[in-house]
Amino acid sequence: MTERLLSQLAHVEILTPVPDESLRFYTDVLGLEVSSRNGQSVFLRGWGERFYHSLQLTEGPAPGLGHIAWRAQGPEQLRTAVERVEAAGVGEGWIDADVGQGATYRYRGPGGHLHELFWEVERYSAPSGMESPFPNRPQRYVPRGVAARNLDHVTVATANPGADAAWHRDTLGHRFMEYTVIPERPDWIVFAMTTVCERAHDYGLVWDPSPVRGRINHVAYWVDSREELLRAADIFLNQDIAIEFGPGKHGMGEQDYLYVREPSGLRIELNTGGYRNYEPDFETVRFEPQQGSNVFYKNAALPHSMFESFPPVDLAPETVEETKAATGLFA
Amino acid sequence: MTERLLSQLAHVEILTPVPDESLRFYTDVLGLEVSSRNGQSVFLRGWGERFYHSLQLTEGPAPGLGHIAWRAQGPEQLRTAVERVEAAGVGEGWIDADVGQGATYRYRGPGGHLHELFWEVERYSAPSGMESPFPNRPQRYVPRGVAARNLDHVTVATANPGADAAWHRDTLGHRFMEYTVIPERPDWIVFAMTTVCERAHDYGLVWDPSPVRGRINHVAYWVDSREELLRAADIFLNQDIAIEFGPGKHGMGEQDYLYVREPSGLRIELNTGGYRNYEPDFETVRFEPQQGSNVFYKNAALPHSMFESFPPVDLAPETVEETKAATGLFA
Amino acid sequence: MTERLLSQLAHVEILTPVPDESLRFYTDVLGLEVSSRNGQSVFLRGWGERFYHSLQLTEGPAPGLGHIAWRAQGPEQLRTAVERVEAAGVGEGWIDADVGQGATYRYRGPGGHLHELFWEVERYSAPSGMESPFPNRPQRYVPRGVAARNLDHVTVATANPGADAAWHRDTLGHRFMEYTVIPERPDWIVFAMTTVCERAHDYGLVWDPSPVRGRINHVAYWVDSREELLRAADIFLNQDIAIEFGPGKHGMGEQDYLYVREPSGLRIELNTGGYRNYEPDFETVRFEPQQGSNVFYKNAALPHSMFESFPPVDLAPETVEETKAATGLFA
Amino acid sequence: MTERLLSQLAHVEILTPVPDESLRFYTDVLGLEVSSRNGQSVFLRGWGERFYHSLQLTEGPAPGLGHIAWRAQGPEQLRTAVERVEAAGVGEGWIDADVGQGATYRYRGPGGHLHELFWEVERYSAPSGMESPFPNRPQRYVPRGVAARNLDHVTVATANPGADAAWHRDTLGHRFMEYTVIPERPDWIVFAMTTVCERAHDYGLVWDPSPVRGRINHVAYWVDSREELLRAADIFLNQDIAIEFGPGKHGMGEQDYLYVREPSGLRIELNTGGYRNYEPDFETVRFEPQQGSNVFYKNAALPHSMFESFPPVDLAPETVEETKAATGLFA
Repeated sequence: MTERLLSQLAHVEILTPVPDESLRFYTDVLGLEVSSRNGQSVFLRGWGERFYHSLQLTEGPAPGLGHIAWRAQGPEQLRTAVERVEAAGVGEGWIDADVGQGATYRYRGPGGHLHELFWEVERYSAPSGMESPFPNRPQRYVPRGVAARNLDHVTVATANPGADAAWHRDTLGHRFMEYTVIPERPDWIVFAMTTVCERAHDYGLVWDPSPVRGRINHVAYWVDSREELLRAADIFLNQDIAIEFGPGKHGMGEQDYLYVREPSGLRIELNTGGYRNYEPDFETVRFEPQQGSNVFYKNAALPHSMFESFPPVDLAPETVEETKAATGLFA
Repeated sequence: MTERLLSQLAHVEILTPVPDESLRFYTDVLGLEVSSRNGQSVFLRGWGERFYHSLQLTEGPAPGLGHIAWRAQGPEQLRTAVERVEAAGVGEGWIDADVGQGATYRYRGPGGHLHELFWEVERYSAPSGMESPFPNRPQRYVPRGVAARNLDHVTVATANPGADAAWHRDTLGHRFMEYTVIPERPDWIVFAMTTVCERAHDYGLVWDPSPVRGRINHVAYWVDSREELLRAADIFLNQDIAIEFGPGKHGMGEQDYLYVREPSGLRIELNTGGYRNYEPDFETVRFEPQQGSNVFYKNAALPHSMFESFPPVDLAPETVEETKAATGLFA
Repeated sequence: MTERLLSQLAHVEILTPVPDESLRFYTDVLGLEVSSRNGQSVFLRGWGERFYHSLQLTEGPAPGLGHIAWRAQGPEQLRTAVERVEAAGVGEGWIDADVGQGATYRYRGPGGHLHELFWEVERYSAPSGMESPFPNRPQRYVPRGVAARNLDHVTVATANPGADAAWHRDTLGHRFMEYTVIPERPDWIVFAMTTVCERAHDYGLVWDPSPVRGRINHVAYWVDSREELLRAADIFLNQDIAIEFGPGKHGMGEQDYLYVREPSGLRIELNTGGYRNYEPDFETVRFEPQQGSNVFYKNAALPHSMFESFPPVDLAPETVEETKAATGLFA
Repeated sequence: MTERLLSQLAHVEILTPVPDESLRFYTDVLGLEVSSRNGQSVFLRGWGERFYHSLQLTEGPAPGLGHIAWRAQGPEQLRTAVERVEAAGVGEGWIDADVGQGATYRYRGPGGHLHELFWEVERYSAPSGMESPFPNRPQRYVPRGVAARNLDHVTVATANPGADAAWHRDTLGHRFMEYTVIPERPDWIVFAMTTVCERAHDYGLVWDPSPVRGRINHVAYWVDSREELLRAADIFLNQDIAIEFGPGKHGMGEQDYLYVREPSGLRIELNTGGYRNYEPDFETVRFEPQQGSNVFYKNAALPHSMFESFPPVDLAPETVEETKAATGLFA
C-alpha cells in the first residue's frame, strides 16, 4: 500500500495522578504552552505547533496512556482508514467533535491501546501579543525552560511489537521502518518502529512482558538541535530532575535522545536529528543490539529501568530475567 | 488534492563546460561519491543516499539545467501523474529505463524546465569495504571534504514563479508552501517554494526577467547540522572558493544556508535545519522581505549576484534595476 | 614583558538614562542575575561568574562608560601595576573598598577611559535554593532568556587605537594580539585587540574620529556555543529587539558574534568560540579588511551604524565619509 | 604563588610498538600534520598549532609515555622553574636544543614521569601552498578525518594523585583545580587536575595502583565544538575504531569527551568545551563521584577498562577490586 491514509501523529493523552506537579513540569520545565483547561484535562502544545494541542494531560489514578490521535491525510482517507479499522473488527465507533478536533473515530489496536482518527482540526490562534514576528510560525518563540518545539513520537508497550507494527502497516498504511532482534531469537521482535511520515518513527513499540495491556513507555518532544538537547539536560539537572538515560544517540533512526521522568513517574523523551526517508518501498531494517540499535556508539547498555512502562506493573523476578535475556538490550 | 502523487525529488542533471574541474569539486570538496560514468555524464550521490544517484553531471556548452527527476509515490500514482501531465498538454512521452531508474515520463513545466517522472529506481549497493557498520545506512560514512549527506532541493528561474508553483500544485500535487511579494506590488510573486514532502521546499522558483527559459538558480545539498554548515564554510574558504552568500538562515522555511559557485560558475547551496509541516491543508504563507523572508535576522540584503541564473544571460541595465525594485530583495 | 600583572577583566560599569528598561533587558532578556542595588547602581553577573558582579549598571544622562575594572594577578602584581601607572603619569589614586572589591587604584588610559585595578574581590555566594548541584559552579543554572554565562570583553572608542593598545601593552602587560589596517594607509591602525588572558581580546579599541574622549563601543557577554548564540538571535527577534549585526564570525580572534542594542541604545555583543593563544611572545597579527578581519566569510561589510560609540556624537558628514574611507570596513 | 612560571603544555612524546599503524591513525584518522621524521620519531601537530610539534611519536617496546614538555612563561621564568626543580632534588640536567625547541631542562616528577622545561621554541612555517588565507592561523585548514585542532592535555597514572598535584603546584606553580574523593575515604584523592592556564586541566593525574611508575593514561586533543566531537565519533565507528567511552561530558572541568584507542592500544581522548577560570586564588574544588565528577549527567559509570594505563600492567584481581572500591568510579 503506497497510498497515505494518515498525515501525522496529532496528539497524545496521558494520565497523571499528580496533575498540578505534572502541569508545572510541562509548562515551566519543558516549556509547553497551555491552550485551555477542560474538566480534568489541560490541553498543551509546543511553541512551534499549529494545532490546538499535542498533549492532553488528564488526571487519573496512575501514570498511563489515555489515547493516541492521528490525523488523516484528508476526508476521503479518513473514510478509508475507518473502513479498514472496522473491517479489522477493532472499531469503537465515532465520537462527536471534541476540544481541538472534529468528528473522530476510535479504535483499539492489537496492543490494547486506544487510538483516534480524525481529519478536521482546530488551529491554534495566537492571542494578542503572542503573534510571531515571522508569518510562518504559529506564535512568538518563548524561551521558557527547554522550550520543546513539537511532539515527535509516542512509544507504547505491547505484547508483540512485530505483530502490532505489521497490523498498523497493513491496516492503516504505517511504514514499518526498523526493528530489533537478538541473534539468539531471531524471530522475536523486541522493539519496532513505524511511521506515517518521513522520520524513522512517530510510533515506537516495545515488548511488554506483563499481563497488562495498553501501557505506554514514553512520549517524546522535539528540539531543533543537539545543542538544545544538551542544554535541556543541564536544565533538568539544575531542576533536580534526574536523567534516566542519555543524552546519546540511537542507531535506530539516528535520533539523539534524552530521557527523564515527569512528576507522575511517566517517562518523557526529548529528541532531535534522525534521518529522513521518502521511499514508499523502503525495506524494513533489521537491527541487532550489538550493531548499535539502541546506543549508536556501541559502548553502553540500556539501564533496566528503561523497560518500565506505565501504569507500572510489578514483574516477577524471573520475568525480569527473561526480558533481559530475551532483549539483549539491558545492562 | 490531498493524495500524494510524488514521493520525492530524486535527482537533478546539471550541465558544465568544465567537467573535470566540476567533478573534482563535487567529489573532493562537496564529498559526493561517484556511482558510475556513462558517456558525457558522471552519476553522483551523497553518502547517506539510497538511490543510485542524486546528481547527474553532464558536459555541456554552459552551466545549466539538464533535467529534474521526481519519483512517484507508487506505480498507480505514476500513472495518475502522467495522465495529469498529458491532460495539461505538456507531456513529452516515455523514455526507456536509463541509468539508475526504470520507465520514465518526461514533461516540460511552465517555466520551460525539463522534468522526469518515474517509479522504478535502482538502489545503490555498497561495494566490498564500503558497507556501513549500521544496517540502516547505505554505505560507510566517508569524511571527505564537506561530506554532504543528500540532495535537498533545486531552485529554478521562471518567468512567473507564482503561476509555475500553482501549476505544480494543481497538476502534480506539489504543496505550495510559501512565497515572497513586496508591498508595492502585492500581486506579483517573486519567489515561491513548493514541496512534495514535509519540508518547506524541494522546489524553489525565482523570477527570471530574462527571455531565456528553463534556467536554474541553484542546487542544494544537505548537511546534518548548523555546525557542519559552518565547517563547510571554513572548508570552502581554505580551498579558495568564495562564499557568495551566508552562512545564514532564511526566514522562509527556516533553513540555514551557504552559497558558493562550483567551477562552472553554477551556484551550489548547502543547507540544514528547517521546519517540518505535515498538514495537507496548510495555508500558503505570504512573506514580505522586511519580515525576514530571505534573511531571518532581518538585517542584511541579498547580494545582487544571487539573482544570476544559469546559463548566464546579460540583462539590460534597466532590467537589472527593475528586478531590484520589483523584488525588494537586493542590496 | 612576560610577567603577568593582570589576571582578568573583572567588570564594566555602564551608564543608562533608562535604568528600569535597561535592567529588564539585562535580567529578563540577557538572563543576568542581580547581586544587589546600591544608590543609582545595580550590580549584575552571569550565572557562571564567581565574582560579585561583572556589570555595574548606573543611571546617567546618556548611554556610556562608567569605568573598566581589572583584577591583578596578585597583591605584588597590583603594586607593580600601580607603580607603572603612576610612572606613566596617569594615576588617579586609591579609592576605598567598594561593592564587590577591596582597595582600588584608578587610572585614566590614553583614550580618556577610566580604569580600575584591584586584587581583593568579593565572591558571589549562592543563597539558599540557588546552590548548584555541581561543586565547581557558583550557582544553579537558570535558563532565563539568553542566559549569558560571563563577561567576555569590552570595546572602547579611542583617538588612536594602535597607540592606546601599545600603551596598555607597555605599561600593564596587555598582550597586543591583532589589529586592522587598510592597504591605502598601512600605518594607521583602525581597530586593535589586546588581552590579559589567552583569548584574542578582552579589550577592543576602535578608532573614534569624534572630539569626545572616553567613549565605549560595546560590552560583550559569552555563551557556550554557536547554537546558543543563534538561539539568542531568535530570542531577541521575538522580543522585537533588532539585531544590528550578525550572527556571524569575525576573522580576528575567530569569535562568533551577534550585536544588539539595549534600551539605552548602547550596543551589547554576544559571542562564543575564538582561538586560544598561550604564547607570551606571540607576534601581533596584522589584518586587512579583505582578509576577513571583520567578516570571516569575506562576503559582507560592516553596517555603518556599528561605528557609533557612546555617548553618541553627531559627526560631520565629511568625518563620516573620512572614516568610511580610512577604515575600509563599512558598506 | 601567583607568578606564572609555565605558559603552556607544549608537547607529549608517546611510545608505540606499531609505529606505522599509529602514524596512520594520527594522520589519516585524527588528521594531524607531520612536521618531520627523525630517527625513530615522527613529529606531529594539529592544523591550528603554531609550534613545530605537539606530539612526538616514537617507536618503543610498548605503548607508553616518553616525556611531557612544558614551555616556560619566559627566559627568567625558565631559570626560576629550574631552580625550583633542582631545589626539590628531582632535576636531571640540561640537554641541548632538540627538534623544535632550544635548551631544555629535564626533571622527573613524583609519579616517575619525565618532564621537560624550555623557553625557546621553533614555530611551524607553512610551506608553499599550505599558507592560511587568514593571517592569524598557522596553516590552511585541512578537513582530513577528525581534523583535531590542538593538543589539550595529558593524563598520567601516579601512585598518589593528590601529592603529585600538590608538588606541581608548590614547585612549578601549577594551579590545582579539582579532585575526586569518595565519601568512604575522604582523605584519598583518586583523580586530580592541574593546569598552567585558564582551563580546568592540561595535566590529569589518576591513581596508579600498580608498582610500575611513569605510566600514562591518555593524551587529549581538542576540536572546536561538540558537534565536531560527535562527528569524530561517527568517523571512528566508520573506521571500525571502537569508542571506549563517550561521547559525554565530565562534571569536572565541564569538558565534553570521547575516548578511543590508537593502534598501539594507547588511549586517545578528544575534547571540547569546558569552563575558563582566571582566578589565581581559585579554591580547589572537591568532587565526589555521585556529584557528576566523571559523568556530568550523573547516570552512568566509567567502564573499568578506562582504568588501564600504559604500558599495561596485569593487576592482581584483588587490586582490581580494591581500585573499584576505592575510587567509586567504575561500573
